[in-house]
Amino acid sequence: MNKKEDISRRRFVTSAVSAGAAACLLSTRELFAGVAGRSNQENGLTQQSAPALLDHPSWKDQGIENLSRSPFAKLKNIPVHAVTIDSGFWAKRRVINVEKSIPSMHDLLEANGRMNNFRRLIGKSTAAQSGPVYSDSDIYKWTEAVGFALQSGPNPALRASAEKFIDDVVATQKANGYLNTYYVDDKAALSMTVQTQTTGHELYNMGHYLQGAIAFYRGTGDPKMLDAGIRFVDDFLLPSYGPPPLKPIVSGHPEIEMALIELYRTTGDRRQLELARYILSGDDRLQLEPRRTIYMYSGTPFTARTKLEGHAVRAMYACCGATDYYMETGDATYLKTLHNLWNDMTSTKMYVTGGVGSRAAGEAFGDAYELPNARAYGESCAAIGNMMWNWRMLAVTGDAKFTDVIERALYNGINSGMSLDGTLYCYRNPLAFDPATGDKIRNTWYDTTCCPPNLERTFAALPGYFYSTSKDGIYVHLYDNSELAWHLENGTGLKITQKTNYPWDGSVEIGVTPAEASEFTFYVRIPGWAERAQVSVNGKPVAGAKPGEYLSISRKWAAGDVVHLKMEMTPQVIEANPHVVEDAGRVAVQRGPLVYCMEQLDQPSGVKLDDVALDLGRKTTGEFRSEFKPDLLGGVVVLEHPGASLEFGNAHEALYSTYTPDTPKNKPVALTFIPYYAWANREATQMQVWTPLLKT
Amino acid sequence: MNKKEDISRRRFVTSAVSAGAAACLLSTRELFAGVAGRSNQENGLTQQSAPALLDHPSWKDQGIENLSRSPFAKLKNIPVHAVTIDSGFWAKRRVINVEKSIPSMHDLLEANGRMNNFRRLIGKSTAAQSGPVYSDSDIYKWTEAVGFALQSGPNPALRASAEKFIDDVVATQKANGYLNTYYVDDKAALSMTVQTQTTGHELYNMGHYLQGAIAFYRGTGDPKMLDAGIRFVDDFLLPSYGPPPLKPIVSGHPEIEMALIELYRTTGDRRQLELARYILSGDDRLQLEPRRTIYMYSGTPFTARTKLEGHAVRAMYACCGATDYYMETGDATYLKTLHNLWNDMTSTKMYVTGGVGSRAAGEAFGDAYELPNARAYGESCAAIGNMMWNWRMLAVTGDAKFTDVIERALYNGINSGMSLDGTLYCYRNPLAFDPATGDKIRNTWYDTTCCPPNLERTFAALPGYFYSTSKDGIYVHLYDNSELAWHLENGTGLKITQKTNYPWDGSVEIGVTPAEASEFTFYVRIPGWAERAQVSVNGKPVAGAKPGEYLSISRKWAAGDVVHLKMEMTPQVIEANPHVVEDAGRVAVQRGPLVYCMEQLDQPSGVKLDDVALDLGRKTTGEFRSEFKPDLLGGVVVLEHPGASLEFGNAHEALYSTYTPDTPKNKPVALTFIPYYAWANREATQMQVWTPLLKT
Repeated sequence: MNKKEDISRRRFVTSAVSAGAAACLLSTRELFAGVAGRSNQENGLTQQSAPALLDHPSWKDQGIENLSRSPFAKLKNIPVHAVTIDSGFWAKRRVINVEKSIPSMHDLLEANGRMNNFRRLIGKSTAAQSGPVYSDSDIYKWTEAVGFALQSGPNPALRASAEKFIDDVVATQKANGYLNTYYVDDKAALSMTVQTQTTGHELYNMGHYLQGAIAFYRGTGDPKMLDAGIRFVDDFLLPSYGPPPLKPIVSGHPEIEMALIELYRTTGDRRQLELARYILSGDDRLQLEPRRTIYMYSGTPFTARTKLEGHAVRAMYACCGATDYYMETGDATYLKTLHNLWNDMTSTKMYVTGGVGSRAAGEAFGDAYELPNARAYGESCAAIGNMMWNWRMLAVTGDAKFTDVIERALYNGINSGMSLDGTLYCYRNPLAFDPATGDKIRNTWYDTTCCPPNLERTFAALPGYFYSTSKDGIYVHLYDNSELAWHLENGTGLKITQKTNYPWDGSVEIGVTPAEASEFTFYVRIPGWAERAQVSVNGKPVAGAKPGEYLSISRKWAAGDVVHLKMEMTPQVIEANPHVVEDAGRVAVQRGPLVYCMEQLDQPSGVKLDDVALDLGRKTTGEFRSEFKPDLLGGVVVLEHPGASLEFGNAHEALYSTYTPDTPKNKPVALTFIPYYAWANREATQMQVWTPLLKT
Repeated sequence: MNKKEDISRRRFVTSAVSAGAAACLLSTRELFAGVAGRSNQENGLTQQSAPALLDHPSWKDQGIENLSRSPFAKLKNIPVHAVTIDSGFWAKRRVINVEKSIPSMHDLLEANGRMNNFRRLIGKSTAAQSGPVYSDSDIYKWTEAVGFALQSGPNPALRASAEKFIDDVVATQKANGYLNTYYVDDKAALSMTVQTQTTGHELYNMGHYLQGAIAFYRGTGDPKMLDAGIRFVDDFLLPSYGPPPLKPIVSGHPEIEMALIELYRTTGDRRQLELARYILSGDDRLQLEPRRTIYMYSGTPFTARTKLEGHAVRAMYACCGATDYYMETGDATYLKTLHNLWNDMTSTKMYVTGGVGSRAAGEAFGDAYELPNARAYGESCAAIGNMMWNWRMLAVTGDAKFTDVIERALYNGINSGMSLDGTLYCYRNPLAFDPATGDKIRNTWYDTTCCPPNLERTFAALPGYFYSTSKDGIYVHLYDNSELAWHLENGTGLKITQKTNYPWDGSVEIGVTPAEASEFTFYVRIPGWAERAQVSVNGKPVAGAKPGEYLSISRKWAAGDVVHLKMEMTPQVIEANPHVVEDAGRVAVQRGPLVYCMEQLDQPSGVKLDDVALDLGRKTTGEFRSEFKPDLLGGVVVLEHPGASLEFGNAHEALYSTYTPDTPKNKPVALTFIPYYAWANREATQMQVWTPLLKT
């Protein structure tokens, strides 16, 4: 099983120190302190040859995805370190993420025995195995969060905690490259059986391992964890399961696909890409039941998929892997499938918050238009998967419709997943809630703790989502107070500053400062919701801004140039497709990228959230009063709108009664809305996103 | 574990033959052919003493429940054989049940290895164990269906098939009384551990065993299966788990509670009742997690329950057991709890079809008002459990509100569970359906095949639900062409004939013929939906008929008396409580006891069910055209009503868009409704119960 194949492959040591020495072209930022990796000798790996790592671009200049050599990626990632988010909306979240969330999750992972699972195998702990089969991935996702945090700048304490984890993790690797804390001892015989591949999350764990290792490497230059991951793939996986297909393989919970491709982008070893392709193609020797391959969103050819179904996170991660595969190969069948699936999702299966996965049963996509509110599952991980997939589709196409989904998910269905103080997490992100159900929506810990470190890695990686480069220039995707220090693909140094109070205000002042005056295209994203956006360069209007498109401004840019983007922040009243039964007769409120909701505790005393309706009269837009409240929920714009409280009376106490056409009496009340992401941060109270309209 | 306790108890042999000889008081029907049971000698049980059986009333005169000595049952069951349903709505269903459903289920149980699980243990089969842990119960529920069928009259072929099953089943009983095909061999050590009690369905299986054995005994007088069941309880269960509490016990899936109490009603052995009480009380030594005790609806004191939640079938069966317990003991805490739970269910958690259990996840009750339509779970077994519970509450109280639920569930959410040809079954009974989801709603077989034999036993037992006796007279609950031949509790012979075309027509002619002219009260049920019901005796109006009550007619009844009940069958338009979000702006149509639905294939060509609305104008009642179509769906009244087809146009192709107050254009169309129970009996087509109202 672990016999090494005599496959010729490049194997050379790229020491982290030498990689670190390959400085980035624009050195406008301090170099990270203590970035140089521990040498392989220090790591006690003298017995093993270190695997190959490409050093182009330098480890520290590889973005969230290293698309520098991906032939079918129209847009290329910029490194996380290239963008500094100084102040404002995301800065606050990111400080809390690094100072509170990531450290407290470290302690919780320890307290819940997740690291002792590793230490037990190396004689450092006597604790019994703890947690579900995918518990190793909790450690890896947390390590990835640290890796991304370190890509933004040094943090010796965080780095040291991660290194302690990594040392123990890597020490458990077996001689044949295998690394997993669950399928050991009496369960070792179950390892990599078809049953375990479909339910045991071995490959899922390793996928997260590789993502964590790559992020940590890109944050520190330290290849220790990555080297061991490569050995898992090279020594254990490829000889037994690699193409040409040896033993049957199925990913069970997709994740390994995108990880293998990012590994390929890091090592240049095409067999890793080939294995990802093989897994995406489905191993037809397995003859898995359809209900299994639907749920797993794997095991059958990805290109035969016609709709999103089954486990939402699995489906999103599979789409990520498939998009990554397309970016390396240009296989048109993949792209066609991906576009079809995207249309299926965005036109029938996505919440207005960017959340996906309607059903608690199987944590699954529902049928078309099956979008319940109180019962919405909308797992934080699925919204993150949605963002990750759209990030990849954006790289393929440069189409702003994908950025619209990224923004929708990020500001709403993802951002809701972490409490404002960074210590409580949502697993579900419903669009209506009643504490009387007994459900506790935010918790410090889940036995399946996939979402918390997933949120942490996402916020830690956020700067990497702000811009992309293309052959002809640069794209701006997200708006917040920030500074880019990077370069165009032709090497011209470029600094971009954003000054804004986004998302509370729609004005963004963008300073574009190339190292030298230079012709290129600056692609300014006009969000899909920004109906009357205006763009000017140095005070001169630029025509052609259309919602949901990038406005391309091609000119000779020079130091001191300023782009001004003005987006109207009038609250919008949104209705859902009439086929969404739970939203019939209801509307949602959105202001800028933020979806709003009502919490019971903000409404006038005695008014029940269940009984209120928004009073629009016959108007379309609503007449909202907007007010920024600095002391509320970390500072939010609160909306107020006239509404009514309906008096159903006794006649409506029965569950069913004969129909009466009488409209219930009502009295006028002022309704108060807060941003959805900030819900459930005070006392337990009822919440709803979709509000009934008063019938007039 | 199996050491016999020296507990003094009555043990005497009541031979089935002698029990059979205790003839029923009114011998107006032919005696069953071949009813006499096989003696214990024939059964090869000479080594074991046969347990005690009470013979009062005679085995064949015990109804669905033998409440003859239950001190807190206001109403007593009549035996199934006492009512003959000759022709009409239920006669057709019952003929198919006995001629098609029960025999074909026999073959399917065989084909799917359910009987070989038993035969393997006695060396008659080499097949591996097949099916889930609760597979034994499939055989028992099927045997119960046969038992009830035989209570209506002889059927030698059916009886012979059941006897063959019973012989093999009983032969697997171990010396210590234990009987189960799953927890044997290498799994024997798991038997009755807390883990197995909570998930392994050992006691659930035995509950169904006892119900099957009792029904078969009451249908044939053959005590073989029952004797072995008593040995399980007496020799295995009571010595180790009986009160005073020995080892911890929890029912896991409630069922054993009501079975033990019916066993107590059959044997008079009070320890069986005591054990049921102990299980209902929850064994606090177990310290089970709340999520488990909620799901299982057991393991904590039943009387501490405040709402229906968790697995719907478990909850309904627990309520059945608790009501049975009340009928034997009069424990007021139980009755209070039961009324609270009933109010919770009927005012917030029951479908208009009488189905319960909204969620696929955990097959569970939802929160209050959580009643999705397309995603309704509404398991057939849960609707049956609902009917069984209400049957018990009716016996306690004589209150017609319970009969209303029985009728609602029976005619709609239960009756929908079996195809018109009797060979296909629904597990789920949703209130809206789209075949584009890929869901196949009716199937011949489910690996968890609980619902099919449950439906079969229910239809087989149906005559037993038509009447009850009380100290002062007799109650009529259900209406169909039928003949009762029984007696009042004072022994006066009584024959009652019903002539009707119910539920298609609201006129029921009821001939009341006591053996001799006699003073008693005849309680005529006025269904809750029957708003203007009229009752006359011998042509003379009787005042006081109120919907949802029994009209008591106390007089001297004599041969030739005729009660005429006339109920208006005008279709009714029903609305749901405004808190049921999926039904907002929608109405359901009901005619008599039947809830109606629309199937796509009945609507005008080109009209999409998704886009139609019912046009009531400002009227309350609707103007339906009713027509009985003898050749459609076995003969049904079809309803037609003016409606509209909405033209949403392109603007509504998006999932979310900015709100527009414009009402979509529409064109008038005639909408066609069929009874809900008959849906999905033609080609796969869209269906919905709740139809939007046209906004005017």
